[in-house]
Amino acid sequence: MTTSTPPAVPEAVLAPALDRLVAALGTDAVLTDEEQLKEFRDPFTFAEWADHRGAAVVMPETVEQVQEVVRIANEFGVPLWTSSQGRNNAYGGAAPRLSGSIQVSLRRMNRILEVDEELGYAVVEPGVSFFELYEHFRANGHRLWPQLPDLSWGSVVGNTLDHGVGTGRPGQHPDRACGMEVVLGNGEVLRTGMGALPGAETWHTYQRGFGPALDPLFMQSNFGIVTKMGVWCMPEPEVYQLCLVTTERQDAVPELVDTIRPFVLDGTIPSGLAITRATDSSKLVELRDAVFSGQGPSREQVAESLKTRSRSAPWMLRFPLYGSADVVAAQWAQIQQAFAGVEAAVCTARTFAGDRVHEETRNHAEMCAAGVPNNHLWALVELWEGVGGHIDFSPVLPLKGADAARVMSILRPVIEDAGLVYSPTFSIIGRTMFHVVPTFFDTSNEAQTRAAFEQMYPQAIAACAEAGYGLYRTHVHFMDEVMDTYSFNDHVLRRFLETIKDGVDPNGVLSPGKSGIWPRSLRPDRRPGAHA
Amino acid sequence: MTTSTPPAVPEAVLAPALDRLVAALGTDAVLTDEEQLKEFRDPFTFAEWADHRGAAVVMPETVEQVQEVVRIANEFGVPLWTSSQGRNNAYGGAAPRLSGSIQVSLRRMNRILEVDEELGYAVVEPGVSFFELYEHFRANGHRLWPQLPDLSWGSVVGNTLDHGVGTGRPGQHPDRACGMEVVLGNGEVLRTGMGALPGAETWHTYQRGFGPALDPLFMQSNFGIVTKMGVWCMPEPEVYQLCLVTTERQDAVPELVDTIRPFVLDGTIPSGLAITRATDSSKLVELRDAVFSGQGPSREQVAESLKTRSRSAPWMLRFPLYGSADVVAAQWAQIQQAFAGVEAAVCTARTFAGDRVHEETRNHAEMCAAGVPNNHLWALVELWEGVGGHIDFSPVLPLKGADAARVMSILRPVIEDAGLVYSPTFSIIGRTMFHVVPTFFDTSNEAQTRAAFEQMYPQAIAACAEAGYGLYRTHVHFMDEVMDTYSFNDHVLRRFLETIKDGVDPNGVLSPGKSGIWPRSLRPDRRPGAHA
Repeated sequence: MTTSTPPAVPEAVLAPALDRLVAALGTDAVLTDEEQLKEFRDPFTFAEWADHRGAAVVMPETVEQVQEVVRIANEFGVPLWTSSQGRNNAYGGAAPRLSGSIQVSLRRMNRILEVDEELGYAVVEPGVSFFELYEHFRANGHRLWPQLPDLSWGSVVGNTLDHGVGTGRPGQHPDRACGMEVVLGNGEVLRTGMGALPGAETWHTYQRGFGPALDPLFMQSNFGIVTKMGVWCMPEPEVYQLCLVTTERQDAVPELVDTIRPFVLDGTIPSGLAITRATDSSKLVELRDAVFSGQGPSREQVAESLKTRSRSAPWMLRFPLYGSADVVAAQWAQIQQAFAGVEAAVCTARTFAGDRVHEETRNHAEMCAAGVPNNHLWALVELWEGVGGHIDFSPVLPLKGADAARVMSILRPVIEDAGLVYSPTFSIIGRTMFHVVPTFFDTSNEAQTRAAFEQMYPQAIAACAEAGYGLYRTHVHFMDEVMDTYSFNDHVLRRFLETIKDGVDPNGVLSPGKSGIWPRSLRPDRRPGAHA
Repeated sequence: MTTSTPPAVPEAVLAPALDRLVAALGTDAVLTDEEQLKEFRDPFTFAEWADHRGAAVVMPETVEQVQEVVRIANEFGVPLWTSSQGRNNAYGGAAPRLSGSIQVSLRRMNRILEVDEELGYAVVEPGVSFFELYEHFRANGHRLWPQLPDLSWGSVVGNTLDHGVGTGRPGQHPDRACGMEVVLGNGEVLRTGMGALPGAETWHTYQRGFGPALDPLFMQSNFGIVTKMGVWCMPEPEVYQLCLVTTERQDAVPELVDTIRPFVLDGTIPSGLAITRATDSSKLVELRDAVFSGQGPSREQVAESLKTRSRSAPWMLRFPLYGSADVVAAQWAQIQQAFAGVEAAVCTARTFAGDRVHEETRNHAEMCAAGVPNNHLWALVELWEGVGGHIDFSPVLPLKGADAARVMSILRPVIEDAGLVYSPTFSIIGRTMFHVVPTFFDTSNEAQTRAAFEQMYPQAIAACAEAGYGLYRTHVHFMDEVMDTYSFNDHVLRRFLETIKDGVDPNGVLSPGKSGIWPRSLRPDRRPGAHA
């Protein structure tokens, strides 16, 4: 990480481009003040580093304004970098790959355009957060549950576009996206899927259309700016049960994985599951409040306790069941029977009437799988007297216990050798496990932050790639390094994607470098900060 | 339809290209004999029409041979048209959009490369049929069920690439595709998703990768030739139950749809459902055998009986449940209770032990949802003394009873005015209904075949588009007309797809015209047989 990087755009180009943006969108929509820009930087990095800093933030409120922004970018040849809420924390937040980009924040596009309760979907703009979608359902009496990631202040659209995962049904958020409106590289508006048929009745019910389905092409890419998206939501079930399998056994993870697998594959559990250290988020929140009132532990104590937990806290597998009381009881009986064969595994569950979850769920785990938004886990950062940060490292594994054991044996030494604490978690969805490792550090400690970014992360990428485990998502700083690992046939994947990029965004204005995809003018060694 | 169309490729170019193909793949792999080519034409059209006829068929056996074919096509500028098994019947079979194309049949690439029973997937080449996949599982004792379309002789890959639907879990075949190998327009080999990471452990368990997911981009398109695909299969359940709700009431369809919807949305039924006229396929097969032995009805009598059935046969909703005996019983009790409120609806079910379906399922409906392959419904064609045909018209509807009623009121007069019989069926999967209408005719009767192609089908496209219902798939003859209906913003969808086409296949050799996507050299009015 460096304290200065050359800007992507010379001042002589930037200034008139910003003037045009102000003329088109209003003064209020273009932020250039240093204080205002801070919110759109990576919150989890050493404050004096200057990588990944935008030159300005522009905040359109309508599709037409987004089109205008793209047209101006083309005219002046300035790179844009789009975020929705900009809460992609632990992966860089709203920060751009290329310093000097003009950041496009879609926070002000925050309308919920449609809810179809019968068909179980909503249509949202990118600024809509999980909190807002939930509140809208509640205020209007819609008995629908949004599917949530761990923190609810993020954008429904943004989380989906970054291939986010969570609890609820289905656990992979891209799987519940249906039908987009997209502003293309030339400023034109495209509607995907059935939305291309004027007056279509099925834009948000059928995920394909005629010809190839394009929704996936606009995720983790830089081929367009998504301005609307249909999102499928769960109907409120009769019964929701959060099931926990807890064990003190430190070697139990592979057995937990292998025992639950048949119930995932046969569809008994069609939602996200998690294996983590047992944590009650309501206690975390209490602890965080204690820290802020001066009664809590110091950040050194927090770090120490994290270290202890990383070797001795109980493991917990948790997952939701949804349905009628009879069906849920029959499913849970069958699952408990399977875990009866796992030494020292304790099954517990808490059951809620579907319409009571709003009042009765108490902590992050119970709430998230019931679509009740919360930011409890943010306390994990705030506990460090407000200067905590983490960078998430997330390889994808097959749903086999042996792979869980193998990846832990690979990553623990890499992370501990960097003087950091290994905090493994597993998100299971279908045949796949996401091994999400949030490595925490003190962002006011440059050496520690540097150890995370410069030692741990690149070594972890290499070690996992060597073992056949690729990342499903990464920090903006490592997009090239991760794409480098997807190297089959002389990097044909990147070359294919960049061929598409050149066609659909010939001036390369949309989020250059996103997922390692660069426009012709900036690849491969002409881009600022290019790695060797 | 015409009796002659200008060939896409002049003989002076074609002849040396074929010589090169013979030199590269062997005489045996290049078919030019008129008799041999017949099998690769549309089987359901008037025999003397010459639309959509390829100049030759080339049959590679390996990925390297496919690469060689693509390189030769680029060198000579000859268009290819790829099929897997070539059983896309009712949509044109193996026939190319552009007459004179060299047809690439992948039938000889028929290896099953891998089966992972623990994770429930197989990796297949495009020539592998549903019959072959099933037989392979049986022969090797794998307790996995393939998910089937109505007829089992087709290709697992080919059906998926055309967005096929079926019974089983999940009902949309693209949803169970995971990880492809693709030969690109320049002859290079790409691996999608996690497959781009050398030695990846998750190529066939995780449907995305790093950057945008590309599997969907290679479906219903002409951006590459898929040479391998991962396919998720269901583990054999403890119990399989085929549930039927039958009613004599001719106006019952909307109520069946609205009554079952909550069970689809809440995940009780995560598989495909069908609403059809009640039919026992084993009786159809008996009838077909009678026709062939000279004891059955004449084709006029068959047509007459179809006509009667179209107005008076009972309706049937059918769907499978899978799971433990307890879970299935609890689910079925709840569903039956809901249908108790539907006048004159009779619920019946047949329950099978999961390991007994191979011996005990008796007809198409029971077999398909249990992964037991069959071609029973082919009898619907053979009944016509061997000269029957049909063209399928398949708009997509939201899962609402009112839409089922509306589309039937739109299509019945269009089809009956053309002197044909309206045979509505509905495939329900998630929030969507596919209104699959197989219009039957006598292919030896030119006037009747012409009425289907030239009167009924174009009118049906227009009437449905006007109502907001787009087609999910169409006959090769109507790909432009259907893409024309996806016209939002001056056909930006087609323009965007054609921009990609120009980048990834600059010589336009891969399946020109597929889904209305044309390479630069052939669009829009320069292509043979271009419509106004």
